[in-house]
Order: sequence, then structure tokens, then C-alpha cells
Amino acid sequence: MAGADAADAAAGPAERKGVIMGTPTGATVVYADGTEERFTDLAGALARASDGRVEYHYAYGPDLLPPPAPDAAGMWRYRALLPLDEGPIRYPLPVGGTPLVASPGLRRRVGMPDLWVKDETRGPTGSNKDRATALVLEHALRAGAETVSCASTGNVAVSLAVGAAAAGLRAVIFVPEQVAESKLALMRLAGATVLKVREGYDAAMRFSRQAAATFGWFDRNTGYNPATLEAKKTVAFEIWEQLGREVPDVVVSPIGDGVTLSALAKGFRELIACGAAARLPRIIGVQAEGCQPVKRAWERGGPVEPVTPNTIADGIAVGDPLSGAPVLRDVRESGGEVVAVSDDAMLQAIGTLAAAAGILAEPAGAAALAGLEVALEAGLVRRDERVVVLATGTALKNPIFPPLAGAVHTVHADLDAVRRALGGG
Amino acid sequence: MAGADAADAAAGPAERKGVIMGTPTGATVVYADGTEERFTDLAGALARASDGRVEYHYAYGPDLLPPPAPDAAGMWRYRALLPLDEGPIRYPLPVGGTPLVASPGLRRRVGMPDLWVKDETRGPTGSNKDRATALVLEHALRAGAETVSCASTGNVAVSLAVGAAAAGLRAVIFVPEQVAESKLALMRLAGATVLKVREGYDAAMRFSRQAAATFGWFDRNTGYNPATLEAKKTVAFEIWEQLGREVPDVVVSPIGDGVTLSALAKGFRELIACGAAARLPRIIGVQAEGCQPVKRAWERGGPVEPVTPNTIADGIAVGDPLSGAPVLRDVRESGGEVVAVSDDAMLQAIGTLAAAAGILAEPAGAAALAGLEVALEAGLVRRDERVVVLATGTALKNPIFPPLAGAVHTVHADLDAVRRALGGG
Repeated sequence: MAGADAADAAAGPAERKGVIMGTPTGATVVYADGTEERFTDLAGALARASDGRVEYHYAYGPDLLPPPAPDAAGMWRYRALLPLDEGPIRYPLPVGGTPLVASPGLRRRVGMPDLWVKDETRGPTGSNKDRATALVLEHALRAGAETVSCASTGNVAVSLAVGAAAAGLRAVIFVPEQVAESKLALMRLAGATVLKVREGYDAAMRFSRQAAATFGWFDRNTGYNPATLEAKKTVAFEIWEQLGREVPDVVVSPIGDGVTLSALAKGFRELIACGAAARLPRIIGVQAEGCQPVKRAWERGGPVEPVTPNTIADGIAVGDPLSGAPVLRDVRESGGEVVAVSDDAMLQAIGTLAAAAGILAEPAGAAALAGLEVALEAGLVRRDERVVVLATGTALKNPIFPPLAGAVHTVHADLDAVRRALGGG
Repeated sequence: MAGADAADAAAGPAERKGVIMGTPTGATVVYADGTEERFTDLAGALARASDGRVEYHYAYGPDLLPPPAPDAAGMWRYRALLPLDEGPIRYPLPVGGTPLVASPGLRRRVGMPDLWVKDETRGPTGSNKDRATALVLEHALRAGAETVSCASTGNVAVSLAVGAAAAGLRAVIFVPEQVAESKLALMRLAGATVLKVREGYDAAMRFSRQAAATFGWFDRNTGYNPATLEAKKTVAFEIWEQLGREVPDVVVSPIGDGVTLSALAKGFRELIACGAAARLPRIIGVQAEGCQPVKRAWERGGPVEPVTPNTIADGIAVGDPLSGAPVLRDVRESGGEVVAVSDDAMLQAIGTLAAAAGILAEPAGAAALAGLEVALEAGLVRRDERVVVLATGTALKNPIFPPLAGAVHTVHADLDAVRRALGGG
């Protein structure tokens, strides 16, 4: 956990009792012919690096090893606040405990010294959906289910397909016809049965629920299965812990079906209910300009009215979000706001996250950062506030990129060629 | 960490002092029009799931939250055995602490009840290279370097490009002309300068070192920079910790340039040197049949002689491995073996890892599992032994798949259509 890392690193040796900083006491050089030479001075060994490989030695002893590994159960750390009876966890893929990244480069780029990125792209299938999948499948395993099903725009489907494979369960997945091919291939690789529904995502969602009831399948559907909300709220618990058990000023979250944002709000409400926090963070919800039913309802008042999605951000292309009403309540209660971002802004945010922070996000995964820019311009957020941006899905699974920044040159192994390529190196 | 998870889960509540299992005490249903209804009996609430969203309540109190987060510093846990002076870690991306997965499905499929997968696909860029990148860039940051460089077949390049972006450093990367486009795009997305070297990987490797020396760049090159070996040895430390501070019988690792395997061996040797282990695991190295210089030298005796790579596994397509000699020494010393696997066997292993374990690997990342099958057939490993296979790189970054197992049907939202598609459901 990045917060823990940062804290630990910042604390330094003082808090690392019995741990000596690593100082090589010598080195062996292994030459290509297999012969070895021992050096006591490292400079001498390093000078031979081009002839062979340098291997450091240390003053070995039991005190160089850390104390026994702590309980690092990721999401299951919070099982007292999850709908889960006693007994061992059966689901085999570790989930949760994702990094909270403090990126100096991103902080400079955005001009916010206390900006954090909750990097949910580090789950088993690269999205925050993996938390919900884990809890739902843990329930399915305990219930003795054989088949699990869901409807999805892509990320939930990949998460369930791969999670079901890990759990030894059969997955039947309903997707809209225009599902991203890269995600479809992963579902099939994991052995899932995929049903493309001609009528689109919202119909697939309602229909898959009917099919699950008819055929007796275990239903993972976000918004219908309360476990998805319970699992995703652990993101709020982790943010709070990684910030040293404090609540940030603002959290920025994308809105697709609405469960990710609403689960964050529930998590922070429960921290207050447990007496661990005094207030909610302001929650800023982000939709794509090409699919903003919640934003419209937020501005107009009244219930959420369905729209037809038109955005590259398939992860949040939900025209009739099942959790629209709770999202409006949660944003209002937190003193937050709902904003919309263009596809171009999301593409730009993908580039910024990659080049300034080293975080690889898909359009929906970068929507929150794009939304932060909008919120800053609108004066909804001050640059000196402590803000956490959610990166929800990885670029690796869904490579939709802006114009690529890095240059490519084809050269011969010749220094002058390199000098020319780099414009004088 | 999966080992910790498993142990923790297996231990159950007895070892989770002060933690009450999660039991909802009631629920609120939030309807589409925004109205809410409170239920004290969960069944009543769940019956309304189709009309609105169910939100559980618990008996909230401080005792429902886990004790303060433990030191979860990933790879830096072992900094006493890393070449690293005192002071805070500057590198912002958390690395290490990857899962050791105990997959019931994979154990059944392979017929090995004590088989484990060290899932290195969970790093920031989805490969074990991220460990070396982190330590090298930590050194670069402490040295005040501005530009870092390396040569790579792909994974190291992506790892360095993204890591350098995270660290705020300039990356100059030398790749062979036939580098995978998916990886090239990620390097450029992160803003790296990429130089395609016409003469291929081995020339690029030697030449990049010369260029780094000439232009004063910080050189990350695996095999030349001792830090890469030091960082990757932490995989052995984690395996040992995740198995309850015990060394497995066998570890299976792919061999590209040889550093991954050799670093594993160094890590286990250092555990012995620290008095924490009594023996090395048998280390089985796996090469692609289309690129097996180390295997040839292992059989023939004498030094490793270069070959021209011809395999889909670009992650291990290294014709002239710089660490060939140390690898031969390490495998011999461990009582291990070197085997080769076909491209087809790697493709099949990709499918097995995905469909039986829910782990997404690229060809080089699945090579170890394919190699285990060869080792089993050759009688080099007994099925009742405790074996750890390394999954080194993710499929998400390099989607090369076997024939896809899962079926796809396009249907209308109609139960009979589903019944037909599923052959009777």
C-alpha cells in the first residue's frame, strides 16, 4: 500500500528496529566462461561489469531479514464490515490493498501538492470490479453455486470470467454487441460463455437478471447484488488507512452504473458510523459528455432519465444507471458535484497519468483526473486541498491512446546516428 | 500476499482478535425515484432488489475496523539486503509483494496438490521487471541522474519507460526492430524516446551500454547493472515468507537473459547465509525451443554459444544471454535442470493459467508452467512436491492467445434464445 510505503519510507530506519540498511561488503564477478573472481572493493568489481556479471555480498545474519510478514489480506482486512460469515476465505485471487500513489510529477503537472491517485488498475484483471467479483464469488462458493452470471460493458465481464475461472465456477456473461474485442478475447480465454445481446447493455442487464432467476444462476450484477456495493466500499476504507486514518477533502470518481461512487460514499459513511471519521469527503462524480444521465438529473432535479451512450469510455457508457438515485443522494449529502468530460479530455488524462505518474489507465479509468481539471476550472476544488482521484481501469486491457508523446527512431548501432536522432543527444 | 491471505483465512477468526465477522443488521432500499425504505429483515429488503438498490447496515462501532495498517512496503521490506543507503524511498510506484496463488483448479488440472504460482504479472507494468526498475530508478534519483537508458525485448523497456515517467526522469530505450507494437505504444504513451536498432537485441544491448557511457546516462541494463539482480532476488524472499518462512522443493523459472532465474538462486542462497533456510530449492530453468542457448550449453557442457531467436515468446527471445554462465552455475548448484518448451506448449499454458487459475500471462510468462509439464514427464519433479512456478509477464500487455475456449453467441433478449445458445441451458 503506497500510503504505508510512503509512511514507512519517510519514517526511515528509526522505526525499522533491528534492520540494518543494505551495504554490500564485497562482490563476485562471474565471467562468461563460468570462472568467478572475488572482490572486496566494489569499485574494482563494478569496473569488470562489462566482462562479467557483478554479484554483491552482504554481512549476512538473521537481523537482515524483516520480522514475520504481517496480515496482508487486502480487502478481507475489513471482513467485519462485509456480509461474510466466519470461516476461511475460499476465493483464491488476492484482491484489494491497491496503491495510493503520491506522484511528484502529477502533482507538479496539475499544480496540486496534496493530490493522490488510488490505483485500482492493479487488481487481478486491472479494474476495481475485481473487488465485487471476489466477494460475490466467495458467496457463490459458500452457497455451492455452479454457474455465475452478469451483464457488463466489459470490465465486470472480464473480472467475472477470470474470477470464475479462478474459483472453478462456470461463467455466463451478457454483453452489448459492441463490446471491446480486447475484453471479449479475455473472457473467452478464461473459458466463459459470452452472450452478445442485440438490444444493448441496459436490456442485457435487465435480461441477464431474468435469465439468472430462470436458470438458477448466481447473479453478480452490479446494482442488483448488494455484495458489489459492500466490496467496493473497501476502497474508501483503504484510502482512509493509507492517508494515516484520515479522510481526504475531496474524492473524484467516475460514474457508470453508479456503484463505484456510491460504494465510496457508503464506505466513508460507515467510517463515521464507526466513530473513525468526523465527516464525508466532498465526492465529485464524473460522467462522459456522451453519456451523462446523472449529470443531467443533477442539474435539472428529478429522477435520472435514460440516454443513449456515445463515448469512447466503454467503462462508463451506461445510459440507464441502476444506482442513479443513490448517486444523486450521495453526491448531495457529501456537498459534492457532478461534472462531465469530453472523450478528448479523457484521452489527454490517459497521457498525463502515463507520462507524469506512470499509471496506465483506460478512458473510464482516466475520467476522474479529467473531471478534476473541470472541477478546478469551475472552482469546485482548491489546489491546496487533499484530493484523491480514482483510477478505475487499466490501459493494458483496453489500449485507447491519445497521440503518443514518445518519439521513435530506427537507427544502426552507431553513436552518431543516436546523436542525430536525439538532436545532438 | 496470497500466502499471508491463505494462512490468515485458514487461521480464521481465532487469530483475528477483536474482529467480529460481518453480519448485516438491516438494510435500506433506495428506489429509482430517490425515495428510501428501511428494512430490519434482510429477506424483505432483498425481495425489493429489482425495484431499487439494497444497502446493508451493520452494528457499527470502532471494533469493526481492523488494527492500524501494517508495514506493507512490498519489495522495500527487504532493504537491509538491498544496496540502498538510509533515507526515504523516493521512487513513487509500489513494487513487490505480489501474490503467491494457491489455485485449486490449477492443482487439479496439473495433478499437483502443493503447486503454487508466484504471480509477477501484478506489478505496475505487469512484469517482474518492475522490481529491477524500481531499485535502479531509486539509485538514479539518489544520484541526481536526468536520463536513464536500457536495451530490451519489450518488458524491461515498458517497465523503464513507465517507471521513469513516475520518477520524473527521461528514458532512452533501445529495442530490436521487431519489438511488439503493443509494448512500443506503451513506451511512447509514457513519453520515452525509443531507438529501434536494426542489428537486433544483442547488438542493442551492447550498444546501449556504450551509448549510456558516452552520453552519461544512468544504465538500467539487466545483467550489467547489479541492482537488477538485487531487486529480483526479493522474489525468492517473498516466496519463502509466503510459504510460512519455508523453502519449496522446486522453483520453475523462465530463462531469457538469465537474471530472473539467477536472482532467485541468489535470494535463496542469501536466506541460507542469513540462517533462515537450510537448502536451495531445485531450480528448473525453462527456455523456448526456438531460443535455447542455455539448454544447449547445459547438455553439451562448456560456455553458452549465441543463437538466433525464433519464438513467439519475445520476453525470453534472448539469443546471447549475458547471465548464461551464472545460470548454469545456479541450476547445477541447486540440483536442478534446464528444459525447453515449444511455442504451442506456451500457448496451451496461457490457456491453462487463465481458465484454471484466473491468471493472465504472456508466452514468456506461461513458459514456466509449460516447463513444469516437461519436467513432470521427464521425471524431474514428483507430483507430490511443493513446486512454485513463476508467472513473469501479463497477457494484458501482450495478448498472444491460444484458440479461445469460451463460446460466443449473439442473441436477442429472449430466454429461449439463451436456452438454445447454451444447448438447453
